[in-house]
Amino acid sequence: MRPETSARAFGSADVQVAAGRLKGNAHRTPVLRSSALDAATGASIFFKAECLQRTGSFKFRGAFNAIAALTEDERARGVCAFSSGNHAQAVALAARLLGTTATVLMPEDAPAGKRSATEGYGGRVIGFDRYTQDRMALADDLAERDGLTLVAAFDNFDVMAGQGTAALELVQEVGTLDTLVVPVSGGGLIAGSGVAARSLLPRVELIGAEPQEGNDTALSLNLGERVRVTVPRTIADALQAETPGRLTFPLNQALVDAVLTVSDDDIVAAMRLLFERLKIVVEPSGAAAFAALVMNAARFAGKRVGVILSGGNVSTDQLALLFGPRQEDS
Amino acid sequence: MRPETSARAFGSADVQVAAGRLKGNAHRTPVLRSSALDAATGASIFFKAECLQRTGSFKFRGAFNAIAALTEDERARGVCAFSSGNHAQAVALAARLLGTTATVLMPEDAPAGKRSATEGYGGRVIGFDRYTQDRMALADDLAERDGLTLVAAFDNFDVMAGQGTAALELVQEVGTLDTLVVPVSGGGLIAGSGVAARSLLPRVELIGAEPQEGNDTALSLNLGERVRVTVPRTIADALQAETPGRLTFPLNQALVDAVLTVSDDDIVAAMRLLFERLKIVVEPSGAAAFAALVMNAARFAGKRVGVILSGGNVSTDQLALLFGPRQEDS
Repeated sequence: MRPETSARAFGSADVQVAAGRLKGNAHRTPVLRSSALDAATGASIFFKAECLQRTGSFKFRGAFNAIAALTEDERARGVCAFSSGNHAQAVALAARLLGTTATVLMPEDAPAGKRSATEGYGGRVIGFDRYTQDRMALADDLAERDGLTLVAAFDNFDVMAGQGTAALELVQEVGTLDTLVVPVSGGGLIAGSGVAARSLLPRVELIGAEPQEGNDTALSLNLGERVRVTVPRTIADALQAETPGRLTFPLNQALVDAVLTVSDDDIVAAMRLLFERLKIVVEPSGAAAFAALVMNAARFAGKRVGVILSGGNVSTDQLALLFGPRQEDS
Repeated sequence: MRPETSARAFGSADVQVAAGRLKGNAHRTPVLRSSALDAATGASIFFKAECLQRTGSFKFRGAFNAIAALTEDERARGVCAFSSGNHAQAVALAARLLGTTATVLMPEDAPAGKRSATEGYGGRVIGFDRYTQDRMALADDLAERDGLTLVAAFDNFDVMAGQGTAALELVQEVGTLDTLVVPVSGGGLIAGSGVAARSLLPRVELIGAEPQEGNDTALSLNLGERVRVTVPRTIADALQAETPGRLTFPLNQALVDAVLTVSDDDIVAAMRLLFERLKIVVEPSGAAAFAALVMNAARFAGKRVGVILSGGNVSTDQLALLFGPRQEDS
């Protein structure tokens, strides 16, 4: 990753600036409620439906804010990114809307729908092998060769500020919350959301949700330093970070109260509940925060809980597999 | 069906009264947009997402309004209804919220999820055979024996007024529309929506959408009188009316510009698009209006089109069947 040459403070003012840039460009996504899910869990849940965001995930917020923050000269040369899918789509659409071009490195095993959607938004996609190639080195080479500006998926203050607008809108709409539960991959969404939420609700509890197989942030917070796990094999394809971000981690050390981990089965069960009761399409990664709530319901009982449903980019083919008759493991 | 003893005018004032009763009780559902679906169809589409309504369909609006309009004495005795599912759930929840009880006749082949949801809202469910038994006679017997007030699914002005609030909210939120497309079963949603929309947009075109196998309203409007079809066999289980309503039909004769019919395959294709691009769960009946737009895209090109997505009560099991690998017809 390209080193940041100057450290600077990151705070709620950055999120406010992002909110101004996103106004009229990003959707103000609805906050959904379900009395049945409240009754089933014992909590009062306020779902921020970022699956209904442009490009199908919260990632559009950060990508748009970061590209809008570039100089005209940088935008004239174009941007690049690496992503398993949601950040890719977000960068491609944001680049097009802001009059520039996007080149995106995507792992060869990224969901086909995410790749074709990225191309549909006008992005140029280059594949790589997630399990053997160093995506950061590839992206740096690309940025250097073509003069492109790398829009990092999470380790970028403008990206974090954009992501924080999701929580800002949620708190503005529902008022007080006891707890906010946010899925964690590189940690940009929870860092931005934590800063935004705490600026309005200083005592709100901030809980992360990670896949059991990709618990790099939980491990790192426990150890007090960034640890790296092997590339997680999980259906939560957007939560396959191997290590917390260099910029996000110290923020999350200060902000995050706990990280809960969930299995793939927990995630599918949560997706079923969201489909059948909330009537929205949530991808596996997008259901992780709600899965953490369901699997730890006693912890949240009686509380007003905000849950960020971070994305909905799952194909009907994948849905049919996840929800169809159980196959024997081979 | 119980005869109405006094004819009365039905108009936008009734919808306004319903809007007042529903405030704080029904969800003000979001209006969703998709630039990809706009590009694919050539229309500017404003989706009113009634799948996100309480009980998973617009039916809650009419049921709540009708039960709220009863006298205290009527509410003390309880209500009854017959429904293949969405009206059943709506009546059950509205009855509970308004402090009364609901007895619901449901066809034995109604989706299991709709039956269990009705029971979950506290409704007492009695099954009947949709293909051999006369549900209206059964409901009348029940109403008479137990002193219950029948809340008809569509042939009731308070129900129609409640349904009309969906279109009222849509027009209030998006301003002008050239066309409004609404699914049609008994005709209550389109009658109420037509009255509400025309009160604000006198020239808006009003298009109905029906299953090919259940085109009773299309046939009836063409012939100028109510005709009866055999019980339609379609995946659109909420659009299986055999004949237009006695009260809804004359309204719809005056209001509706055209009815378009769609096949089950058209509906599944529309559901796929809504899932993958709009990220919401729409049941087959709920996708009928969008299917009609997609299958007749040239007709809507360049227009601002409101589409009511009427419900989302489909189980993940059914989804897996609809979206899974194609089975050979047996």
